[in-house]
Amino acid sequence: MAARHAEPPILASASAVRARLLAAAGVPVEQIASGVNEDRVKAASGGLDHDALALALAEAKAAAVAAAHPGRLVLGADQLLVMDDRRFDKPRDLGEAAAHLTAFAGREHELVTAAVALRDGVVVWKRTERARLTVRSLTPAAVDAYLAAVGPAALASVGAYQLEGPGAQLFERVEGDFFTVLGLPLLALLEFLRGEGVPAWAC
Amino acid sequence: MAARHAEPPILASASAVRARLLAAAGVPVEQIASGVNEDRVKAASGGLDHDALALALAEAKAAAVAAAHPGRLVLGADQLLVMDDRRFDKPRDLGEAAAHLTAFAGREHELVTAAVALRDGVVVWKRTERARLTVRSLTPAAVDAYLAAVGPAALASVGAYQLEGPGAQLFERVEGDFFTVLGLPLLALLEFLRGEGVPAWAC
Repeated sequence: MAARHAEPPILASASAVRARLLAAAGVPVEQIASGVNEDRVKAASGGLDHDALALALAEAKAAAVAAAHPGRLVLGADQLLVMDDRRFDKPRDLGEAAAHLTAFAGREHELVTAAVALRDGVVVWKRTERARLTVRSLTPAAVDAYLAAVGPAALASVGAYQLEGPGAQLFERVEGDFFTVLGLPLLALLEFLRGEGVPAWAC
Repeated sequence: MAARHAEPPILASASAVRARLLAAAGVPVEQIASGVNEDRVKAASGGLDHDALALALAEAKAAAVAAAHPGRLVLGADQLLVMDDRRFDKPRDLGEAAAHLTAFAGREHELVTAAVALRDGVVVWKRTERARLTVRSLTPAAVDAYLAAVGPAALASVGAYQLEGPGAQLFERVEGDFFTVLGLPLLALLEFLRGEGVPAWAC
């Protein structure tokens, strides 16, 4: 089936982490940022539960890119952070990052990670997964020291942490798939892609 | 407490992955390979269960290095792969790697990861953790294709796979902490190190 995929899948995301996860597993992708306004999708999705919203955002991104690329397999992804049923959006500045981390300290939250594959406007695969993370007790000084050590990189992820970097210092416990924490339900996505003949050596 | 540690911890291991995990979390280490003959330790530890053996190996490595570095904090680590109570050692060649992966296919196995901290011959901290992995069904051809894609890098880890690389293609399911899979009970080790004042910004 490899011949169907002389062209690589398109990842409708600017995320370097997601592209790196796929490339490391042997799936190079073409990255095209979707330009989707996430706030608008969220505002229009008031009634959805968290998993459905994450899927809706992933699909909106994939659909925006797929429209201009007929026949191509387009992947979209999204990640939401939920604590006590409240969603936390990506912090806009370091002050907001500090407020979020202070809220997470000593408590559990969940990351809801969704991915969707689209071809010619049709959803051909989708998946959500959840991971549960416990942040250790953090004094305000510890939060400030962490943000000073990490700098603006803290603003790149929904939780203001990178578990694969200094963010590991913030956690007491991580339950669930690591790839889900990083932003893709990778093992399930790879299974789907193998069914599509990608990458040829793994099929 | 940071003043106690003008000198970084020593990692009694040649493992690039372990050094990278610690450095990413803000803990640079000095790496000194222990030169310990693991086969000899295993032969002398016939009666130990898997966790105790992994700890004994981690401690043997740390002790060998600590002897020459009085006063320094020395970290040792080890990882065992266990399936149906049978231990699988690191494959010696690609033929053995293929045999191991064929044995793992369609089944669950465990990684037992141990770490020990020593100072002046005294164990000041230790920990084992386990992760459970399910390898998908693999034909002999799929095993060969994987090993051809990965090459001799397959011989670098006890399971002949790197989950953070093409090895992700082999798995159906991974339960347990990702750092434990990579070779260190990292979150617990970081908690211990913070108690030792390392790194200063996280304490």
